[in-house]
Amino acid sequence: MITLEHGAGGRKSQELIEKTIAPLFRYRDYNDLGLDGFEDGSSIKIGKEHVVFTSDSYVVKPIVFKGGDIGKLAACGTINDLAVMGARPIAMHMNLVIEEGFGELELGKILRSMAGVCRGERLHLLGGDTKVVEKGALDKIVIACFGIGLAGKLVRNSGLKPGDAVIVSGSIGEHEMAIFSEREKLGFSGSFKSDCAPLYGMIQKAMKAGGVHAMKDITRGGLAGALNELASKSVVSIQVEETEIPMRTPLKNACEVFGFDPLTLACEGRAVMGVNGGDAKLVLRALRRTREGRGARIIGKVVPGKGEVVLDTELRGRRLIQVPTGSPLPRIC
Amino acid sequence: MITLEHGAGGRKSQELIEKTIAPLFRYRDYNDLGLDGFEDGSSIKIGKEHVVFTSDSYVVKPIVFKGGDIGKLAACGTINDLAVMGARPIAMHMNLVIEEGFGELELGKILRSMAGVCRGERLHLLGGDTKVVEKGALDKIVIACFGIGLAGKLVRNSGLKPGDAVIVSGSIGEHEMAIFSEREKLGFSGSFKSDCAPLYGMIQKAMKAGGVHAMKDITRGGLAGALNELASKSVVSIQVEETEIPMRTPLKNACEVFGFDPLTLACEGRAVMGVNGGDAKLVLRALRRTREGRGARIIGKVVPGKGEVVLDTELRGRRLIQVPTGSPLPRIC
Repeated sequence: MITLEHGAGGRKSQELIEKTIAPLFRYRDYNDLGLDGFEDGSSIKIGKEHVVFTSDSYVVKPIVFKGGDIGKLAACGTINDLAVMGARPIAMHMNLVIEEGFGELELGKILRSMAGVCRGERLHLLGGDTKVVEKGALDKIVIACFGIGLAGKLVRNSGLKPGDAVIVSGSIGEHEMAIFSEREKLGFSGSFKSDCAPLYGMIQKAMKAGGVHAMKDITRGGLAGALNELASKSVVSIQVEETEIPMRTPLKNACEVFGFDPLTLACEGRAVMGVNGGDAKLVLRALRRTREGRGARIIGKVVPGKGEVVLDTELRGRRLIQVPTGSPLPRIC
Repeated sequence: MITLEHGAGGRKSQELIEKTIAPLFRYRDYNDLGLDGFEDGSSIKIGKEHVVFTSDSYVVKPIVFKGGDIGKLAACGTINDLAVMGARPIAMHMNLVIEEGFGELELGKILRSMAGVCRGERLHLLGGDTKVVEKGALDKIVIACFGIGLAGKLVRNSGLKPGDAVIVSGSIGEHEMAIFSEREKLGFSGSFKSDCAPLYGMIQKAMKAGGVHAMKDITRGGLAGALNELASKSVVSIQVEETEIPMRTPLKNACEVFGFDPLTLACEGRAVMGVNGGDAKLVLRALRRTREGRGARIIGKVVPGKGEVVLDTELRGRRLIQVPTGSPLPRIC
C-alpha cells in the first residue's frame, strides 16, 4: 500500500523508485544522465551542450503561505533543480490539474506569482496542459513543472572529494516550519516565513568564485537527506559541526516543542555544496554577497569514507545523521 | 470560477490559456516554438536539431478501462504529441501524484503497462517525481508526463495548403465512448474498446510515403476540434465528406441514443493529417499497411478560406463544424 512516506523524499521514496519504477524502465542508450543517477534531474547531450531536464509536482497545503504560494514554489523548485546541476534554466512547461470550482482570481494570483519568478530568472514558459477534475476529486490544485536548462559541464551529486568544504547557503528548516505552523494554525505562525527562492543567480556566483564539486537544493528530507545523498553517491564521508549549521533560535525552540529534527526539515531556497577546500573562503564570500546566500556558513568537510554523515555535537558527542525515512509532514511542497 | 469545460480541450480551455496564462508568461527569446503557437508541444533549436517538448497530465476515470489504463494512456499521449510535430520521441519524465492507500500492486500494473509502450517505442524514462497526498485529497492517481523528442524539421499545425488531402488514420470516438460506457456501467460496455495506441511508427511511415504538411492527434475536442485548429492556424478552410469519416456503426448508434456528436469525441490512437494532394494515395496506402492506420480514409480536402471547417452531409446538406466548447465528459484522459 502506498503511504505518505513513499512521497516524502526519504528512504521510502528511494525504495519505490529503486524497486518498483526503475527496473521497469531502465534503458541507457540516450542517457547522458538518467534515472539511474537519481539526481535532481536528467540530461541529454546534444552537440556540445548538456540539455538538462527536471520535473516535479507541487501539492503543498495550504496553497498560499507566508513567504510564497504554490506558484512561486513551483517556479523556484524547477529553477533550483536545474541550477544545482550546473545548468542555466531556460524554459519550462507547466501542467495544471484543478478542482472544479477553484476561483479564477486565486488561480490568477498563483500564476502571477509564478510568472514573477520566471520573469526575474528569464525562464520562458513554452507550453503546458490544463485538466479540470470534478469537485471532491482533488484538494484544489496540483502543478507539475518540467524545467529545461543548458549546461556546458554538469555538476553531479557524485562529485564530492575528500578535502572539500561543505557549505550551506542559509538557515535551514524555515519552509517546512512555516507550512506546519500555518497548517496547524499555531499561535507562532508569524515567526516563520518560507525561505522559498530561486537560487540560480546565487549558485552562478558561487561557481564563478571557485570549484563547486557537487550541489543539492535542500528540499524533502532536509539537510540530513541532502548530505546523505551526496556522501553516498560520491563514496566519501562528511563531517559536520553541529554548532556551524545555520539555524534560527525560534526554529530550534519550535523543533524542541514538537519533537522535530531540524536536520530533516525541508527548505525551498537553500543549497548545500561541496567546494574545493582551497576555494572555500572565496565561495563563501561570493555567496554572502547575494541576497539568498547572505546566511551561508561552512558547516563541515569531506573525508575519505563510505557514505557516512557524522555530526559533531557540543553536548552529545558524535552521532551519525541517518537518511530520514520520510518527512515529518506530508504536502510541504 | 474554473469549470470542467476549462479542462476539456475546447474553446474554454483555449480562452484560459489565451487570457489567463499566456499574457503573464509571454517571452520569445529562447523560443523556436513556444506557448504562442498553441501546438501539441514546444521546441528549442539546439545546433541543427529541434529538441521538441510536450507535457500532459492524465486524470482518466476509471484508471483501468477496456483497451488500456492510465499508464498506457500517458505513454501513448506523450509519444503521439511528439510524433505529430514530426519528432522522434526519445525520452520522458514522469511525475506521479498518488492518494495515500493506493495499492502497490495496482501501481505496479499501471507502470508495467506504461513501460511496455515505452519499451516498444524505445522511449527512455529519464527521471520523475513522486508525491503522496493524504486520503481524500485526490481520487487515486494523477500522472504528469513530459516528453522529449528530436526533429530535423518540425511539422507545424499551420502547415496545411489548399489542395492538400485530409486523412484520418482510423475510426473515431472509440476511446471516449469506451470510457463513458465503463464509467456509467452501461450494458453495452463490451462493444467499445479504447483506441489508445502509440502512433510514432505509423506517422513515420506516412511521412516517408509523401509530403505531410500538418498533423494532430485527435484527443479532447475530437475530430471537430483538431480540424478547426488546423484550419484556423493554417488560415485555410477544410471540406469534409461526412460519409467518408471512418466510424463504426455501434458508435454511431450510441451517439444517437446519448445525444453525443461523434465528431467531438476523443480518440487516443488516431491522427488527422493534411497531405500533399498528389501524394495522398501513397500516404493512404502506407498508413493502411500499419496496424494503427489500417482504417485510414481520405475524408476531405483543404481549400482557400479563413479557417472554416465545412461538412458535406448526405441528408442535411452543408454545415459548419464548430470548435466544441468542451467535451461531453470530464476525465477522459
